[in-house]
Amino acid sequence: MKIIIIGATGTIGKHVTRALKQDHEVITAGSKSGDLQVNIASAVSIENCYAQAGKFDALVCVSGDGHFGPLATMKDEQFRIGVNSKLMGQVNLVLIGQHYINPKGSFTLTSGSLAEDPIVLGANLSSMNGAINGFVRGAALELDNGARINAVAPGVVEESPAYFPFFPGHTPVTMTSVTQAYIKSVLGGQTGQVYKVW
Amino acid sequence: MKIIIIGATGTIGKHVTRALKQDHEVITAGSKSGDLQVNIASAVSIENCYAQAGKFDALVCVSGDGHFGPLATMKDEQFRIGVNSKLMGQVNLVLIGQHYINPKGSFTLTSGSLAEDPIVLGANLSSMNGAINGFVRGAALELDNGARINAVAPGVVEESPAYFPFFPGHTPVTMTSVTQAYIKSVLGGQTGQVYKVW
Repeated sequence: MKIIIIGATGTIGKHVTRALKQDHEVITAGSKSGDLQVNIASAVSIENCYAQAGKFDALVCVSGDGHFGPLATMKDEQFRIGVNSKLMGQVNLVLIGQHYINPKGSFTLTSGSLAEDPIVLGANLSSMNGAINGFVRGAALELDNGARINAVAPGVVEESPAYFPFFPGHTPVTMTSVTQAYIKSVLGGQTGQVYKVW
Repeated sequence: MKIIIIGATGTIGKHVTRALKQDHEVITAGSKSGDLQVNIASAVSIENCYAQAGKFDALVCVSGDGHFGPLATMKDEQFRIGVNSKLMGQVNLVLIGQHYINPKGSFTLTSGSLAEDPIVLGANLSSMNGAINGFVRGAALELDNGARINAVAPGVVEESPAYFPFFPGHTPVTMTSVTQAYIKSVLGGQTGQVYKVW
């Protein structure tokens, strides 16, 4: 299986990449490193990335920026950091990628626990995560040729201790459990699912 | 109570307006009609609207456009119709309105059933509805001075028969049940809730 992984060197991405590389052809893509360069906030950059990668069987996105900060001073332009990257970046990976994906291929996007289990300073990410969850549920009904789409919704992960203070009372999730959710999406047969890992 | 209603002449808005007008001072706002004119896709227009309305106790938004159409031909610019109106319009009503709202006031936004119960052609609205649901859950943790925020998530409503063919097997919800959810949000004490009406 030919698998494109966006954000392959990130905290979660490196585990997913390692796991999928064992049995599959993995093409890594990132803003600064990887086999291909891509800025997911740009539809043109995404189109170029797919054109270089060619037909593929699975797209995994473990990338996407959001805005983390107080609601009281939040402005339109800060909220749109998440809109342009975490939301539209991942949406455009699907809208454009649907024209490159092989039959029975899959898209796996990343949302997060904050859509349903919010924290202080996280309103933008709660919203973006909810948007991704809604999108995969809707898009799953329409992808052609048996292509599938799911989202993985991780809680704060064990290898991101810098975030722990912002997640009081949350039990960090293991990298193994998060990685398994991506594997389930890519290698399983389900579609339109949100895999909650928290 | 001084209540601003955005979209007061719409299918749902007119019922909510009629119900709230019985016991409260209602200021209606819309793109073409109402006491105040507002284009919610413009943060400047929202700021002007609040400046004219002055301090208020409740903001109800039953307005916001999304894109309805096939995923196979959907492009970034179509998806952003929903982003700029239904999502950022409602988000900006809160980000800006938090500086005008009275203590213990409330924001009531509109999402919809498609976030969890998707239909063909509805991927953009599924995503926008999920984004609104996530936003109210996150924002509820941070609004100051006891201000509250909830979303109403209606299914297809009985007075929109033109939409029925797109919702096969869905039972249209009564205007009474939808209106009651808005009343519950405005006059009740809950916050961070998504009131599902379907």
